[in-house]
Amino acid sequence: MPDRIDINCDMGESFGAYKLGRDAEVMDYISSANIACGWHAGDPLVMDLTVRLAKEKGVAVGAHPGYPDLMGFGRRRMDLTPAEIESYILYQTGALFAFAKSYGLPLRHVKAHGALGNVAFVDLEVSKNIARAAARFNKDVIFVALAGSVMVQAAREVGVRYVEEVYADRVYNPDGTLQSRKIAGSVIHDPEKAARQALTMVREGYVIAHEGTKVSIKPETLCVHGDTPSAIAILQKIREELKKAAIDVKPMGQ
Amino acid sequence: MPDRIDINCDMGESFGAYKLGRDAEVMDYISSANIACGWHAGDPLVMDLTVRLAKEKGVAVGAHPGYPDLMGFGRRRMDLTPAEIESYILYQTGALFAFAKSYGLPLRHVKAHGALGNVAFVDLEVSKNIARAAARFNKDVIFVALAGSVMVQAAREVGVRYVEEVYADRVYNPDGTLQSRKIAGSVIHDPEKAARQALTMVREGYVIAHEGTKVSIKPETLCVHGDTPSAIAILQKIREELKKAAIDVKPMGQ
Amino acid sequence: MPDRIDINCDMGESFGAYKLGRDAEVMDYISSANIACGWHAGDPLVMDLTVRLAKEKGVAVGAHPGYPDLMGFGRRRMDLTPAEIESYILYQTGALFAFAKSYGLPLRHVKAHGALGNVAFVDLEVSKNIARAAARFNKDVIFVALAGSVMVQAAREVGVRYVEEVYADRVYNPDGTLQSRKIAGSVIHDPEKAARQALTMVREGYVIAHEGTKVSIKPETLCVHGDTPSAIAILQKIREELKKAAIDVKPMGQ
Amino acid sequence: MPDRIDINCDMGESFGAYKLGRDAEVMDYISSANIACGWHAGDPLVMDLTVRLAKEKGVAVGAHPGYPDLMGFGRRRMDLTPAEIESYILYQTGALFAFAKSYGLPLRHVKAHGALGNVAFVDLEVSKNIARAAARFNKDVIFVALAGSVMVQAAREVGVRYVEEVYADRVYNPDGTLQSRKIAGSVIHDPEKAARQALTMVREGYVIAHEGTKVSIKPETLCVHGDTPSAIAILQKIREELKKAAIDVKPMGQ
Repeated sequence: MPDRIDINCDMGESFGAYKLGRDAEVMDYISSANIACGWHAGDPLVMDLTVRLAKEKGVAVGAHPGYPDLMGFGRRRMDLTPAEIESYILYQTGALFAFAKSYGLPLRHVKAHGALGNVAFVDLEVSKNIARAAARFNKDVIFVALAGSVMVQAAREVGVRYVEEVYADRVYNPDGTLQSRKIAGSVIHDPEKAARQALTMVREGYVIAHEGTKVSIKPETLCVHGDTPSAIAILQKIREELKKAAIDVKPMGQ
Repeated sequence: MPDRIDINCDMGESFGAYKLGRDAEVMDYISSANIACGWHAGDPLVMDLTVRLAKEKGVAVGAHPGYPDLMGFGRRRMDLTPAEIESYILYQTGALFAFAKSYGLPLRHVKAHGALGNVAFVDLEVSKNIARAAARFNKDVIFVALAGSVMVQAAREVGVRYVEEVYADRVYNPDGTLQSRKIAGSVIHDPEKAARQALTMVREGYVIAHEGTKVSIKPETLCVHGDTPSAIAILQKIREELKKAAIDVKPMGQ
Repeated sequence: MPDRIDINCDMGESFGAYKLGRDAEVMDYISSANIACGWHAGDPLVMDLTVRLAKEKGVAVGAHPGYPDLMGFGRRRMDLTPAEIESYILYQTGALFAFAKSYGLPLRHVKAHGALGNVAFVDLEVSKNIARAAARFNKDVIFVALAGSVMVQAAREVGVRYVEEVYADRVYNPDGTLQSRKIAGSVIHDPEKAARQALTMVREGYVIAHEGTKVSIKPETLCVHGDTPSAIAILQKIREELKKAAIDVKPMGQ
Repeated sequence: MPDRIDINCDMGESFGAYKLGRDAEVMDYISSANIACGWHAGDPLVMDLTVRLAKEKGVAVGAHPGYPDLMGFGRRRMDLTPAEIESYILYQTGALFAFAKSYGLPLRHVKAHGALGNVAFVDLEVSKNIARAAARFNKDVIFVALAGSVMVQAAREVGVRYVEEVYADRVYNPDGTLQSRKIAGSVIHDPEKAARQALTMVREGYVIAHEGTKVSIKPETLCVHGDTPSAIAILQKIREELKKAAIDVKPMGQ
């Protein structure tokens, strides 16, 4: 039985005068921060403050690159060439690295944001482009791959370091993919339910899909959304249950 | 007498469908490329190609950060806070570093672009902000300071590695500053004249100001504009004269 | 004694996923909305919704153009040429006009935002550029000029339609200019105090400056900030006092 | 037999320091300019100059809106909602209208740019969104619909004013659609050939598809690319042949 898990959350999504998220609170419950890099959210001042906050809280930092679409928060698919994707990921990863380095932190991981992530879940070539960009930057950077998606295959084919990620607060399909957010009830808001799903995945190695089947899944990192009303309650409950189960929360790949 | 000098030039200023500059040609004559980082010019694809080109030509690469003002090509002064300047420089430097690293090149220097550079020439605090950002990123990164400007003082006060820079193709004032571009004749287009000024500065350690006085100046790097009609002719003539004088052209700080 | 006044407020400052302001509430108390045009704040979807909301509430709409600086919310001075300012104002005014027109509303006024407004308060040439741009678009568009600033002179020299504007919630200098926000206490948060100042200006034609002198001032429009914690309380109190004084609240220039 | 035709061309695609196209030359041969609106290309200064140039040359002006993607020149498909498309078109159309109005010109037409246009060719809903936005702005604005595409159906269903457009310099498929640019030879560079195709379409009402069949087509406007090496030669030849055939070149919809 695993004795540790990572909890990751998107951070640093404010921009200029616009505030988003409850980073200071959420940081108390997570072990890895996926920090926006200024393309779909975030700006250099926000990145600077967010990395500093992560350091203070002992949270590991990773890049959370997205499409060049601030107006759409990176949630709208764009048709990019492989060279475009690769260079966009490198650019954003390097930008975040500068802040991490200035605080003496390693840039631990790269996780694609929004529509870029959604495309990567199902498009092997896009997944490979992202994995390749991470590896071009640094062989030790961890590529965050959604468990059950083609990202895992991409990570293996490209030969990069990766972890398999699961969602505590999303409903699963019987094939191990996430149920579309367009379907009502696909996001779990009940802390008890989210914590139970998290524990089952981490400790037992499976998730119960929406129609009741057990799907085998072996996460190294657990994603929780930080911007929902119940985010803090869910995080508290998960930490509580993990503690009872004697499972440590530690950054991925340590 | 010095036996070596660096020649630096702004590179990678194309953006998307927009082409600017003659990078492939200019790279044959320089030893350091100041590469735009996507804020006033350049984009990730252009940065990727430009760093690759620099590697092929044996040219050292540095970041050329500017104001967040693509529409104004970074040539319009913006009133930024010290924290903004510092984080903007860090962001852009990191972004370029990612490409340098992916090609196995060090990020050698940081040189402020356009209006940000012009402000830095005369504003000690802004100069120090830029120097500090460079040092925050990496103590070994060289801060390019215009000889005769407050940038030199800033570099010393902050305690960063720096080089003094002169312009081969700009007319000087008796106090060692550059004559404003707004004055007719302040840019030298004649290759013979530019090469002569370059040689005098590098070998003799002085420049003749517009009214005839000798101004002491000790450059470690020589800037030449790459986007003027006579750029290639000027570069060829300078290289020719440096060769005759047995002065090697090598990247700054090696 | 005047029997009417306009109350204007900045509206439509949300952007993409980022929400700002309490437009739906504030609209109930104002007669003119200064709507952001997508450069420092706002986006086309937000503009569309904000104009529709204004129409529903019977509020007149005007353009609120700013610097091309979303990251700085248009609050950072940029050195622009007269031609740049003029074309930027025209562009943003036209963009907002499209939404006004589509809802059958006239574009009533143009009011410069943030740092552009602050520059216009003291720079006659910039004020004239803005006034000229408004007039180039449409002779009937009203240029909003801060009472006591050079904007009034600019409006007269350019020969545009204009109104003089005062602030209910800002402290005044003895020369009729606004006390700098950098001075503590320059923004009035007390609804009673703001309403009293508003009434004195509208009904009596003067304002009491910070050191006690009476300054003559004749407003046609009253600006209230919509993004402060006490905004709604201030607006309610002003409306209450205006009602008692039998002064109608109606869009400027009707 | 028709005695008149419109020739349209994309104009105003420069941006800041970046120059693109040969607008001053091309304007001598066309009757309608599709002017970029600052989202995929163009900026307010460029729009101002381009509209002024059009006025001087007696060329009608229309808006050429595109995706919010300057880095990709609007050539990369983005997944937008109907409300986003509609508001983006309105915004850009209004922005261009401001310049047209300031020069006393009507905004004659709206033609979607790049990937947005390509999507509109085949997606009825997107076509209808664009048509609706044009009509929301002004019932008299002409929606430019590619002949043989669903844009014509969209125009009819929405009930907007429209013209059918053909390409002088593109090879056609037997079903009346354009052969994909990805197929070698799909763009005609030979002025004789382009002029012949133009004349056959305008005068005879058909085009010969790539495999030899005659396809019936009745254009009201003829598009020529202005950014190819042979653009001027093609335009000259077309004008020459139209003159011989006594067909006038006049703005659409006059």
